[in-house]
Amino acid sequence: MTSDLYERGLGHTVANHQPLTPLSLLSRAAHAHPERLAVVHGESRCTYRALYERCRRLAAALSRRGIGVGDTVAVMAPNVPAMLEAHYGVPMAGAVLNALNIRLDAATIAFILEHAEAKLLITDREFSPVIGDALARLARRPIVIDIDDPLARGGARLGEADYEAFLAGGTPDFAWQAPADEWQAIALNYTSGTTGNPKGVVYHHRGAFLNALGNALAWGMTGRPVYLWTLPMFHCNGWCFPWTLSALAGTHVCLRRVEAPAVFRAIAEHGVTHFCGAPVVLNMLTNAAAELRADLRSGVEVMTAGAAPPPAIIAAMEAMGFRVTHVYGLTETYGPAVVCDWHPEWDDEPPEGRARRKARQGVRYPVLEGLGVFDPASLQPVPADGRTMGEVMMRGNIVMKGYLKNRAATEEAFRGGWFHSGDLGVVYSDGYLELRDRSKDIIISGGENISTIEVEGVLYQHPAVLEAAVVAKPDAHWGEVPCAFVALKEDAGAVEGQALIAFCREHLAHFKAPRYVVFGALPKTSTGKIQKYVLRQRAAKV
Amino acid sequence: MTSDLYERGLGHTVANHQPLTPLSLLSRAAHAHPERLAVVHGESRCTYRALYERCRRLAAALSRRGIGVGDTVAVMAPNVPAMLEAHYGVPMAGAVLNALNIRLDAATIAFILEHAEAKLLITDREFSPVIGDALARLARRPIVIDIDDPLARGGARLGEADYEAFLAGGTPDFAWQAPADEWQAIALNYTSGTTGNPKGVVYHHRGAFLNALGNALAWGMTGRPVYLWTLPMFHCNGWCFPWTLSALAGTHVCLRRVEAPAVFRAIAEHGVTHFCGAPVVLNMLTNAAAELRADLRSGVEVMTAGAAPPPAIIAAMEAMGFRVTHVYGLTETYGPAVVCDWHPEWDDEPPEGRARRKARQGVRYPVLEGLGVFDPASLQPVPADGRTMGEVMMRGNIVMKGYLKNRAATEEAFRGGWFHSGDLGVVYSDGYLELRDRSKDIIISGGENISTIEVEGVLYQHPAVLEAAVVAKPDAHWGEVPCAFVALKEDAGAVEGQALIAFCREHLAHFKAPRYVVFGALPKTSTGKIQKYVLRQRAAKV
Repeated sequence: MTSDLYERGLGHTVANHQPLTPLSLLSRAAHAHPERLAVVHGESRCTYRALYERCRRLAAALSRRGIGVGDTVAVMAPNVPAMLEAHYGVPMAGAVLNALNIRLDAATIAFILEHAEAKLLITDREFSPVIGDALARLARRPIVIDIDDPLARGGARLGEADYEAFLAGGTPDFAWQAPADEWQAIALNYTSGTTGNPKGVVYHHRGAFLNALGNALAWGMTGRPVYLWTLPMFHCNGWCFPWTLSALAGTHVCLRRVEAPAVFRAIAEHGVTHFCGAPVVLNMLTNAAAELRADLRSGVEVMTAGAAPPPAIIAAMEAMGFRVTHVYGLTETYGPAVVCDWHPEWDDEPPEGRARRKARQGVRYPVLEGLGVFDPASLQPVPADGRTMGEVMMRGNIVMKGYLKNRAATEEAFRGGWFHSGDLGVVYSDGYLELRDRSKDIIISGGENISTIEVEGVLYQHPAVLEAAVVAKPDAHWGEVPCAFVALKEDAGAVEGQALIAFCREHLAHFKAPRYVVFGALPKTSTGKIQKYVLRQRAAKV
Repeated sequence: MTSDLYERGLGHTVANHQPLTPLSLLSRAAHAHPERLAVVHGESRCTYRALYERCRRLAAALSRRGIGVGDTVAVMAPNVPAMLEAHYGVPMAGAVLNALNIRLDAATIAFILEHAEAKLLITDREFSPVIGDALARLARRPIVIDIDDPLARGGARLGEADYEAFLAGGTPDFAWQAPADEWQAIALNYTSGTTGNPKGVVYHHRGAFLNALGNALAWGMTGRPVYLWTLPMFHCNGWCFPWTLSALAGTHVCLRRVEAPAVFRAIAEHGVTHFCGAPVVLNMLTNAAAELRADLRSGVEVMTAGAAPPPAIIAAMEAMGFRVTHVYGLTETYGPAVVCDWHPEWDDEPPEGRARRKARQGVRYPVLEGLGVFDPASLQPVPADGRTMGEVMMRGNIVMKGYLKNRAATEEAFRGGWFHSGDLGVVYSDGYLELRDRSKDIIISGGENISTIEVEGVLYQHPAVLEAAVVAKPDAHWGEVPCAFVALKEDAGAVEGQALIAFCREHLAHFKAPRYVVFGALPKTSTGKIQKYVLRQRAAKV
């Protein structure tokens, strides 16, 4: 029988139990560092005192319009201050932030606004054409507020008020409340959904708080970071970094468009110390003109995820003086939940070896309780042999609350008590995991699995290759064979497909080498991922 | 009416909700960094793989003896590996760790073992005399296990088994379980209790996890810290650092006795990067012989708390090349919960100004939800004028679960929804708080409050003063007047009390200067704090 010695008279009180919420981090930053620079955007500057006031104004203005617990507020904006403020102001009103992917089409946006039952939409002028179209499709139009950013290109105002006027209607001392329960929703993020309707991933305050701290720990962020917004905030709430920065009272440097000159300029002008980006962003920087990179000071920290980064891209970034931290996660895990936690002894390896190490996804965040690569049928872990593939699964407090209004998909995702990532990977003898493919992307050729990530990693080593993607092409004899799609560098000159195939055969088991190579620009999803399902359709016709 | 849009079908599952526990940090460190050095003790070395195995053995061995949820395991030991292992092994068995203060007398230890209903006691050989005496006083003797540390001085074995043999009876692959609820108790720490019986402060897994991360964030700990155990682990579980280090896979350097030569030697030998200590420890180091300090590399991080550090001690530490972080908390707040979060612009101030800034207690940890200085009657915040005193109060997840078997004291401590620290302080216009006194230590002279901390701060500026404490002496005319007790430095030569009084009058409002000065060694509590209640008794007789 269990004693209740430690329970009698020792329950929760408001003195010793408060809901975990990232909102608490902003109020702390504003109290401790009111004059510190919180946000840079173009010529505008905002201190932590002002940021906190603006967020409370937003919460107050939302409350005045009847927005509260359980209501959805959608935002369509690039990385501008209003988007950052929504990460605090919306949940301070008790509501749920639905950050829309700015690259979506009107039909999808209309689907999301309807599915999310959005009560209010804050939208940047530049996106008025697509938003106007989306709103016209809705049976019930939400309240619309326009962000009239001087840096926006074109567009028109659509709503009843300008964002600044809307804020002016709220009081800066609004007495926001922490959520009654830390399990309360804070954000809603729709997956890009390559097929079918997107699913709405729900985050809660507990998970957002924990991953905000998890980022700082996993990345070793201290001091007063200056963080450049190269990663879209609509992507898993910018991997929770809008909240992480408050924990450190760091500075946000906004960026409407991610282009190499703007990134290098921001690093030089604002002393940027940290930024995040998918491998495509890194690739853009390593292929930038030499004069852009001339004054790059070394030691800028870069976190990458969103797709498995080819070792060649990591090596090129580090050769430029960036320090790359590789993380991995999904929309369903609040962004990064796994980190290639570096061993100092790996520093002594040659650059290619280091890059291969760093291209592995690694181990769990300190705030993730469980991670494994399992046989999806038996839920038994695969042997740590670096070869046996299984499905990557997670469990813990930075796994989503579930899919909005989709009990079946939620239960399917959590079957067996683990979140099923849909990613296939292996575990090395040192316990680090490495992705091999999305389960739908893997190629099975003559009964053998071929990891498209592995083949792409080799293609990226070729000096002429800018981008590469490998997909399955149906084959009467082998079932499937690899087909490579390749974009060449501008200065690459003429390269034959056969030369690339030969290059792959030099570096891979021969059956893994592509049988076909197609040259040209690669189609990308709205979050910058290469659209393999489009390439599969093309490959079938090659 | 609140919508339940974000609740339907979105409840807890084992996939997305796990109890927060610091035990998860050790299993992660052992997985990610199995070969990393976890513990140094004398000539012995232990990797994270081995540490995790030893902790699981301990949990298994405890389980075999019937120890489980709700049971208390007491440990009487200095900072040796077994004490560190108990921080994991005991809660892995579901039990609660009661780390005993090694300076306590037999009667108090007997009281604690009985009050805590300890089922098992792990005790270091060196303390066998006092423990033998304590055990003889008990009606029911717990199971006793001896730590037979080769570095222990003298003593005898008292128990049924040696710690190593006990561990050998447990399996290294013990399938420990996280607590069913993160509110489950993990540790029990008795306050030193200057009057009356000590109170048992109960910690839960949630708070221990959060403050483990809070320490890393507040101190800016990254990389692979090498942490020297100058702070007793029996003191608020070493301020939660046994758990913090696992989050960073850092190295623990054990230390049985805190003496200046051993501290400087450990820094040089093991590359210590961080250590914690009360101001008395810092004072010991700044007064150490010059040859000991000769090879001190600069940049070692020091965290201090446990008493308000006089600015002069901070300045002396920084002059030696240490970087001091000042934190503040109580046993009831898992150790540090408040930090003097540094503003970079303060770096430009002269050393004395910097030290005065740093002597302030500061602002809340990122993992503490509420902190304020309030009028204890009205619970209204005092004005942020740097002068108006109130009681420091905290609220949040790193406030204790409560006092064991003491509902009245728990309710009293939490009245009004805030934890009442019993410390008096002021708030400056920049929002930083500064302690003025324990509420029982403040001197009221002619109706004016005199902060003994302020007067002591001036005394510490005098070059001849090693230690100083100021207490109230009853006075027929003024009610109370300040009486100083001073220990002089060895090489100080002759100093007159009148000279010290004159020195204070130069630096303070005259009514605050001591009327009496008494020279001699100062009495200390078992945690190294000066025993002001003893001095008050002496002062009354001066």
